[in-house]
Amino acid sequence: MLKVNEYFDGNVKSIGFQGADLASSVGVMAPGEYEFGTSQKEVVTVVAGELVVCLPGESEFRAYGAGASFEVEANQSFQLRVATATAYLCTYE
Amino acid sequence: MLKVNEYFDGNVKSIGFQGADLASSVGVMAPGEYEFGTSQKEVVTVVAGELVVCLPGESEFRAYGAGASFEVEANQSFQLRVATATAYLCTYE
Repeated sequence: MLKVNEYFDGNVKSIGFQGADLASSVGVMAPGEYEFGTSQKEVVTVVAGELVVCLPGESEFRAYGAGASFEVEANQSFQLRVATATAYLCTYE
Repeated sequence: MLKVNEYFDGNVKSIGFQGADLASSVGVMAPGEYEFGTSQKEVVTVVAGELVVCLPGESEFRAYGAGASFEVEANQSFQLRVATATAYLCTYE
C-alpha cells in the first residue's frame, strides 16, 4: 500500500500512496543533479528545501522553494539541481 | 543519508533527512489508528490528506488538514486517526 522507491543510487527516495483524489508520492532528494522522465503528467510541490529546475522546452533553471509547484506533462524529461536535502510531494494525473 | 523507517507493520513509512536547519522526515500514514511517542520536540505539518489528533493532555481529537501543523513536546505520546492515506512533514528540534 505504501511503496518505497529509490532512484539514483538511493540519493532520491520516495513513498508512493493513493491520496484521496490522486495517486501521489512524497520523497526526498539528497544534494545533487538529477534528470527525471515522466510517464504521466506530474505536479511537484516543494515541501521543505528548494528545487532548482529546468523544465522541458526551457533553457534556464528556476528555483522553487517550500510551497511552490511546477507541472511536467507526460513523456517529458526535466533537470533538477538540489543544494540541500529537499522534500517534495508529487501528484500524478 | 536518506533513512527509510517503517512503523506499525509498514502502515507508516518515513524518510529521514537533514534539512537546511533541522533534522526532518517526510512520511505517509495509511488509514488506521496510531499512538506515537516523542523523544524530542516535534512539529508535524500535514502535506496532503488529514490527521485527526489527540494531543498530550487533551481529551478531544482535532482535525489537521493540508498545511496545518501541531507541536508535541519531548517524551510525550499522542494519538492519531487517519481516514485516507496522509503525507506529513516532521521537524525535530
